[in-house]
Amino acid sequence: MVKSVKPIIILVCPQMGENIGASARAMKNFGLSELRIVAPRDGWPNPKADSMSVGAVDIIKSAKIYDDLPSAIEDIEFLYATTGVPRSMNKDYIMAHEIGKSHPFELSGSSARVGPRVGIMFGRENCGLTNEEISYANAILSIATAPDFSSLNIAHAVAVVAHSIFTSENSHEIKSIENNQMLATNGELEYFFEHLFGELDSRKFFKVPEKYEHMTHNIRNIFTRINKLSKNELQTLRGIVTTLSK
Amino acid sequence: MVKSVKPIIILVCPQMGENIGASARAMKNFGLSELRIVAPRDGWPNPKADSMSVGAVDIIKSAKIYDDLPSAIEDIEFLYATTGVPRSMNKDYIMAHEIGKSHPFELSGSSARVGPRVGIMFGRENCGLTNEEISYANAILSIATAPDFSSLNIAHAVAVVAHSIFTSENSHEIKSIENNQMLATNGELEYFFEHLFGELDSRKFFKVPEKYEHMTHNIRNIFTRINKLSKNELQTLRGIVTTLSK
Repeated sequence: MVKSVKPIIILVCPQMGENIGASARAMKNFGLSELRIVAPRDGWPNPKADSMSVGAVDIIKSAKIYDDLPSAIEDIEFLYATTGVPRSMNKDYIMAHEIGKSHPFELSGSSARVGPRVGIMFGRENCGLTNEEISYANAILSIATAPDFSSLNIAHAVAVVAHSIFTSENSHEIKSIENNQMLATNGELEYFFEHLFGELDSRKFFKVPEKYEHMTHNIRNIFTRINKLSKNELQTLRGIVTTLSK
Repeated sequence: MVKSVKPIIILVCPQMGENIGASARAMKNFGLSELRIVAPRDGWPNPKADSMSVGAVDIIKSAKIYDDLPSAIEDIEFLYATTGVPRSMNKDYIMAHEIGKSHPFELSGSSARVGPRVGIMFGRENCGLTNEEISYANAILSIATAPDFSSLNIAHAVAVVAHSIFTSENSHEIKSIENNQMLATNGELEYFFEHLFGELDSRKFFKVPEKYEHMTHNIRNIFTRINKLSKNELQTLRGIVTTLSK
């Protein structure tokens, strides 16, 4: 299947329509076009998003709206969580300005090339992404900031990330395309987690109910760090869980 | 005279207070602090600039206001004019994402170093800088954009330029952000594999003996790709195998 390598921007629970519109404008400035929005606070469509997008209203009009994060990322094969502050979470960090050399795949603002479907999540204006939302990501994308003032406007963050991708494509050598490897999607990985967590739960792995969330986040964070997990490999993992559970 | 090499941001005839405030916020995110404003359309002070600056109101409060461009740049020793579109003018061009290697002096978001006083001009929201204003500049600073949509929001432009400067200086320090959790050793991982393969073998996972080697290699290849697996996480994986095998 031919897929564009242009990353998909995913705004998680954005609050202000103005910021959605400004993010769309920044996307278009740097050649991105696909916008997904999870549960926008003020509903959808939002006239303020239209007006702030200026000439990028086409991105606003074609934006896809989702009720929850899992449905928004189901077909994503490599998911970044954008966070300003490194969190005490054992997950890969990539700095936005180094994305050209650190991203594990070819990444490009150009639709001419193909590769895994990449999503980049941005969180709420006031509090970013939750730890649970971050646990879905394969890696954290972080923007270098002054240590005492690290909270970026969401559209500024989109602009900086999109500019970094756009310029990394134009100025760095192209990484090898890995078309021949069918990667597991986020939805397929989620199906594996449901299976695994179900088996573990029925065997009282989560002894303390209050720790269920924390423990499942930790487990997600282990498996989402497997670099370029293929469909075949995910099948192997499922087979392991099935076999061990017999 | 000791002078900071932190560039000074100069907004030329900005129209909307919101954009001035958002620009100040972006400056502070990337360690810049000195803002000059030439003839703001809606006068000064401007409450909308205060509110949009969020935590960067100190930059708004200490901003200097000028009636005209020459007085705003009188003490500047190297002046950039930011333009989105290359103009037919015989002047050096520097791309924002290459400023670290192309700028003729040391350029830094850090106040610890000294050098020529650098100013970076940004033009009006609707029409940028005039050719006359650009003629004052020593060089043009340009942001790489999609060719069909090159007009950036002014605060986005400030964010992209300030981020480019900040990361050009700091990239060596930023790389050192490392997860300091205790990582699993290869021996510990091997112990996990012995446990896993033993449980799988006793449950006839490896149906064809000739494929044992190939299959165990595949499984090793999955788990060894977990980047920076910590001791705690390996313990979790061991716990999963133990629990599922019950």
